[in-house]
Amino acid sequence: MSGSQTLLQRIAAGKEPRRLKEAASASGVGVPQLAESMLAGHVVIPAGNSGRKVETRAIGSGMPTRVNANIGASSMSASLDDELAKLQAAVEAGADAVMDLSSGGDIRAIRSGIAARCALPLGTVPVYEAAVESRERDGSMVAMDAEELLAVVERHAADGVDFMTIHAGLTRSALEELEQQGRLMDVVSRGGAFMIAWMLHHDRENPYYEYYDELLEILARWDVTISIGDGLRPGCIADSGDRAQYQELVTMGRLAARARESGVQSIIEGPGHVPLSEIDASVRTAKKLTEGAPLYVLGPLVTDVAPGYDHVTAAIGGAVAGTAGADFLCYVTAAEHLGLPDRDDVFQGVMVSRIAAHAADIAKGLPGAARWDESMARARKALDWDEQIRLAIDPGRAGRIYNERQSASTEGCSMCAELCAMKVVSDYLGIEAGEIQAC
Amino acid sequence: MSGSQTLLQRIAAGKEPRRLKEAASASGVGVPQLAESMLAGHVVIPAGNSGRKVETRAIGSGMPTRVNANIGASSMSASLDDELAKLQAAVEAGADAVMDLSSGGDIRAIRSGIAARCALPLGTVPVYEAAVESRERDGSMVAMDAEELLAVVERHAADGVDFMTIHAGLTRSALEELEQQGRLMDVVSRGGAFMIAWMLHHDRENPYYEYYDELLEILARWDVTISIGDGLRPGCIADSGDRAQYQELVTMGRLAARARESGVQSIIEGPGHVPLSEIDASVRTAKKLTEGAPLYVLGPLVTDVAPGYDHVTAAIGGAVAGTAGADFLCYVTAAEHLGLPDRDDVFQGVMVSRIAAHAADIAKGLPGAARWDESMARARKALDWDEQIRLAIDPGRAGRIYNERQSASTEGCSMCAELCAMKVVSDYLGIEAGEIQAC
Repeated sequence: MSGSQTLLQRIAAGKEPRRLKEAASASGVGVPQLAESMLAGHVVIPAGNSGRKVETRAIGSGMPTRVNANIGASSMSASLDDELAKLQAAVEAGADAVMDLSSGGDIRAIRSGIAARCALPLGTVPVYEAAVESRERDGSMVAMDAEELLAVVERHAADGVDFMTIHAGLTRSALEELEQQGRLMDVVSRGGAFMIAWMLHHDRENPYYEYYDELLEILARWDVTISIGDGLRPGCIADSGDRAQYQELVTMGRLAARARESGVQSIIEGPGHVPLSEIDASVRTAKKLTEGAPLYVLGPLVTDVAPGYDHVTAAIGGAVAGTAGADFLCYVTAAEHLGLPDRDDVFQGVMVSRIAAHAADIAKGLPGAARWDESMARARKALDWDEQIRLAIDPGRAGRIYNERQSASTEGCSMCAELCAMKVVSDYLGIEAGEIQAC
Repeated sequence: MSGSQTLLQRIAAGKEPRRLKEAASASGVGVPQLAESMLAGHVVIPAGNSGRKVETRAIGSGMPTRVNANIGASSMSASLDDELAKLQAAVEAGADAVMDLSSGGDIRAIRSGIAARCALPLGTVPVYEAAVESRERDGSMVAMDAEELLAVVERHAADGVDFMTIHAGLTRSALEELEQQGRLMDVVSRGGAFMIAWMLHHDRENPYYEYYDELLEILARWDVTISIGDGLRPGCIADSGDRAQYQELVTMGRLAARARESGVQSIIEGPGHVPLSEIDASVRTAKKLTEGAPLYVLGPLVTDVAPGYDHVTAAIGGAVAGTAGADFLCYVTAAEHLGLPDRDDVFQGVMVSRIAAHAADIAKGLPGAARWDESMARARKALDWDEQIRLAIDPGRAGRIYNERQSASTEGCSMCAELCAMKVVSDYLGIEAGEIQAC
């Protein structure tokens, strides 16, 4: 299908493609309103045209806050089976999208294996493969020229990738701000580090930036959504929100507009490590500078000191970012900063990220979001344990904990037993007083 | 020691008691400034005068956000050994205070056992024991009269309790608001449910409210801090912030002022289940209505749908509440809404609550809070794994995950291996460019 008009171009031409209608129907937003949001660049539906089947997931304003799970092999752990197990865990936990960040092993075979079994929108960061290939062939990660970098992008598109992180906004101007202001941790994005190394080695501008028109041509041909990466995202609380980060963001906003004009949907990637007091401003400013493009945040992590619990630090930051307007949360697992996640880390990571997303949807007043909570409250009021477990975001885990801790002797749970407030209320208020409304 | 002046009275008399000096020294706040905060009721140091040894923990404005762990038996699970194991887990995880909420088994023996082994400030909710005793003796939870209710308070004080939750603000006026507006879940606080049942059964005002002067006399005699309980805290997102809750809070503010005048330190308890969008207003209003009394929140939980993960929903809410000014976070464990927590739930619950507290301290700009994060960032930059694990909030867990996932073959971790941004940056920027400052 490559070469036909992109989804965005068909919508601009007044058509109503299947995916537009599916997304409108799933979200309860009207087709014309969603079309308008997509043309304005506020909502994207990542779905390449390689022929791979992929579910429709609209991401952006007015949509539920979405969750992405990163999986992928490294040179120290490169088994397709492990990655497929993680994929399955991400799907079972309810992820909306998956990124394959493989940087080791047979990267292409792993990607193809994941693509063949993944029904969710699939993302990659092509520069990882480019770096590895360049080193294997020429002994240096940065030997590859711009043309070859673009060829890797096209290869990913042909393999069935729906959205790609491209660090096109990390230009020499942003690098200059980084040099001038200084940082505690410099650069923690692998893609960002690669781009800087390439620019310095070749004494050239960022090749994705310099050849951005050519890049957009490839992306449009395959209808791939660009996720403009923030190569200078802060890697610690101390580095949050500096001039380098915002210099890059200004460029990213301009590049998103150019993508849209070329019929390419775009997402903006955001931090990273951000103090809780700065998340709201960070999200709102990113939205402003990118004219409301879907914002895809990594966490953000609200402290640096909790390796082993970074799924939680990310859930805190993600819930607050989502409330402020972030549209797409990239999960962080408990293994972050320590090693590759395993299957269980992936499952738990998606779950807590979904909790953050749902808390944000309630806070934003997304129509219908709080109905789930109301149903749970009614089940609790009724001491209907089967229904509480059925309604739980993770019925398996809720059921396991409940069954472990109960005896059959009481309606209440083992926490309060006969002193259950629900029971006291129904025993004393329901019967003796009767004037307080139960549900 | 009962009968001597309270800590607050000694400070009001211009003395500088040991605990005041200890707390000032630990927090880096000057003694006169802390004395002023305590006299204004903005900071408390819960420590009864029963003779039990207890560490000094100041709670309130300008202090680190503190964390409490609830433990305690129920009639379905009533072993002192289990409770001591939970106590140990709470201490190991770094809790600042512990509450024994036992409502079953030999309540007094369990309390005494915990008190004998607990070096942290210890809290209880005397009405649980009163309810159980009343039912055992008279066949009804609410048969007990006001005098007997106060006698249970004094018994707890004599047993070495430092702070007590007393639902004195849940008066008939608040009950009327509850009846008028209606709620999905009515009352979910065990103490609140008991007070309402008592009031309706006896057709009287809340006995703690009616005999508040007598209550304060007992608390002053034993120098026990009152934690004014919010018996009408919302039990689900849908019930958050209604008129009943605020009617009770208005009364609680007035009662806190009366406590202060009697030389009794007071804490205000807060919700509960609160949408993320309402936490800031909820905290600031509570602080305003109570003239800046230390605010002690339960969570708050930002969604109802995540049983099995309520330590995380509470960490999200707690971090945001702490940022808005809440001083004291009551942890919620993964077992909440399902059963009594076990040892591991307690440990994890304290850990994620401490993460929330620390994230809030960074956000509030508490002097020195972010230095810990800076040290971690420096260790990451240096790829110093021993130091990263040493600095982790839970070195045991961080070390376990790291060791499981590593091979000895690389400086980076198994997540990125040779594509580690830190390594790329140091290899390419450090050597070839040199102009970007490392730490």
